[in-house]
Amino acid sequence: MALLVQKYGGTSVANLERIQKVADRVAESRSKGNRLVVVVSAMSGVTDGLLRMARGLHAEPSEREMDLLLATGEQTTTALLAIALQGRGIAAVALTGAQAGIVTDGTHTKARIANVTPAAVQAHLRAGQVVIVAGFQGQTMQGQITTLGRGGSDLTAIALAAVLKADRCEIYTDVDGVYTADPRTEPEAAKIGEISYDEMLELASTGAKVMQARSVEFAKKFGVVFEVRSSFNRARGTLVKEEAKSMERVVVRGVSLEKNQAKVTLVGVADRPGVAAKLFSGIAKAGINVDMIVQNIALPAEGKKAQTDITFTVPRDELSKVRRYLEPFRRAGGARGILYKEGVAKLSVVGIGMRSHSGVAAQLFRALAAARVNIQMISTSEIKITVVVDEEAGPRAVRAAHREFRLGRRG
Amino acid sequence: MALLVQKYGGTSVANLERIQKVADRVAESRSKGNRLVVVVSAMSGVTDGLLRMARGLHAEPSEREMDLLLATGEQTTTALLAIALQGRGIAAVALTGAQAGIVTDGTHTKARIANVTPAAVQAHLRAGQVVIVAGFQGQTMQGQITTLGRGGSDLTAIALAAVLKADRCEIYTDVDGVYTADPRTEPEAAKIGEISYDEMLELASTGAKVMQARSVEFAKKFGVVFEVRSSFNRARGTLVKEEAKSMERVVVRGVSLEKNQAKVTLVGVADRPGVAAKLFSGIAKAGINVDMIVQNIALPAEGKKAQTDITFTVPRDELSKVRRYLEPFRRAGGARGILYKEGVAKLSVVGIGMRSHSGVAAQLFRALAAARVNIQMISTSEIKITVVVDEEAGPRAVRAAHREFRLGRRG
Repeated sequence: MALLVQKYGGTSVANLERIQKVADRVAESRSKGNRLVVVVSAMSGVTDGLLRMARGLHAEPSEREMDLLLATGEQTTTALLAIALQGRGIAAVALTGAQAGIVTDGTHTKARIANVTPAAVQAHLRAGQVVIVAGFQGQTMQGQITTLGRGGSDLTAIALAAVLKADRCEIYTDVDGVYTADPRTEPEAAKIGEISYDEMLELASTGAKVMQARSVEFAKKFGVVFEVRSSFNRARGTLVKEEAKSMERVVVRGVSLEKNQAKVTLVGVADRPGVAAKLFSGIAKAGINVDMIVQNIALPAEGKKAQTDITFTVPRDELSKVRRYLEPFRRAGGARGILYKEGVAKLSVVGIGMRSHSGVAAQLFRALAAARVNIQMISTSEIKITVVVDEEAGPRAVRAAHREFRLGRRG
Repeated sequence: MALLVQKYGGTSVANLERIQKVADRVAESRSKGNRLVVVVSAMSGVTDGLLRMARGLHAEPSEREMDLLLATGEQTTTALLAIALQGRGIAAVALTGAQAGIVTDGTHTKARIANVTPAAVQAHLRAGQVVIVAGFQGQTMQGQITTLGRGGSDLTAIALAAVLKADRCEIYTDVDGVYTADPRTEPEAAKIGEISYDEMLELASTGAKVMQARSVEFAKKFGVVFEVRSSFNRARGTLVKEEAKSMERVVVRGVSLEKNQAKVTLVGVADRPGVAAKLFSGIAKAGINVDMIVQNIALPAEGKKAQTDITFTVPRDELSKVRRYLEPFRRAGGARGILYKEGVAKLSVVGIGMRSHSGVAAQLFRALAAARVNIQMISTSEIKITVVVDEEAGPRAVRAAHREFRLGRRG
């Protein structure tokens, strides 16, 4: 009897009808002789509703009480799914994160899993029950209820799969896998059959937001193979696993586009050691999430002090925070001037095959040039090339890259 | 600094506006230097909504999962009220029943409190925090979430008041106290200033459903004096406490009417020992909640076997269950015939003064006769007289009794 961990996201359990469909699906898997642990999210809309209520009472609700509040969402789904299974004559038991042994640190609203004590889950499995676990939540050693932050239910599923040594882990969501590009942008985008953790991480971090990076990192760390698939159809999804030799034959696995970015350029920054460190540690302290950073080579004119220009990107909605931090920095002589540019996007091509193939960057730049897309910034890693382009040119750039690397052909 | 336990019911926290009002009230009490433990119910409608969802999935949801589901209602209110208080700059902490140390037995959906471990509540009080506790719920020693059944939040408040040795316990609800009669039936009904536990119990058990009997019994057992009052105004409520000598001066404390009753008469039951026992133990096993039972004296005609008639009342909506049980009993020779009568009501007059005053029953019967109310059954206890009347005549009977015992005069 195989042990499966399944996770159903908020849209998969959005209403009673969908919960019944999930119960059908669990029942079917059960009838094939599988033992099942099912992790569920809050019904979609519930968490937002709770957040709205809390903010209606106080602009800055305490994080401890927010966790107590939000944890009710998953607890509700858990009980409802167990009840739906019982209605099918299937022995099922619902557990809160705490009851399932998810022990976290005390960082409310974004707790980290410290360990998983699976004794209760294992006992229920031995008793022949389907075990439904509330995702996204845990409990500290001191009995405080915590939540794991965005993508927390995926993390719960992967952590349980790791500690239970599950045979399979299936992440059910509202898309039927990871695609070579966003199908809304590139109609020829193809579903990826298998992808390595590292490729998935790079795609996740650059806008293909099927899963949060931390869940993928966790899976990588503990070697949990998981499948991302849709709860709305029966199609096979995308298998995320350790890279295999065969994967390297594919140079580029996928293309992603991250919109709603802004570009900030500091002109005339003193070019001496420690300036950039001071600048970016200050930005980090202000809670601003800086991504690409590019510094031009400084070629001072004779008799002048060495100066340099530094450009970085931030999510557009953090731009006002950036301004608040940088304007005093400029006035204090930190930079001669600052340019802010909204309406940019980050295009990335990702693939572990890049390690053994050269010329991928040049091939990308040629394709973009042919599509008359202007490249504003470039950043590369071992398995990823990222360029900043005008947001308006983003979709055209995605299609050009997708065609160039023949991604539409695989299925 | 006095220690207060306050409890706010579902209508008092029905929406964000009302939660803000409760927060105002708690803040006011706090500003007078009180230490506060505040027990809250689920926002009104929430529990019913959860029940509907569960039943929409399965006609007979398991009690364990129902508890997990329903417990989210109070947990939500707890977090929201704590957040509302924090918005006023008041240190507040929200606790689930489990976190507040409410330990119960394992009888899901109607658990009994086994003990209260108040260490966490006391620690938060010492830290100067207002402690908000989810009513209606607890946890078994094995970590299962339980609920306490109807009126459970009152029970939580009274149990905490007992174990914390609170100086006062205030039960806030949508009525402003206990009345001498239902004001919708008797416009001259007056609020009762003080009432003994026993009187409150008799009123509770006969339809004046301000509180469930079990909470009053618990308060009596542990000597917790509590006040029933409204969260919507500032009027003093009704103090429920151990009886005092002065209370006996009042012969009748109040009149209550329980509608939606049915009367069942078994005609020609064999009058020998054990027959009634067999009949009613069978009815109890069938889960039917029998109340008044009256048996006529059997005077057999010469040469005939001794027979008797037995009459009892049940809530009208249990009548079909009663029929299902009794018809086989009749066919098996248990009774010659059975009469069912719907549309009856139980009128009760309650007062500890009856113990030392005689003639109260006669006075009641005279008053009802004068109001042309026909009495169908009579049952008396030490501090209560109950009669069964036509439901249609019920309000008239209440007004006649209320006037007869001059209950409208006090205030």
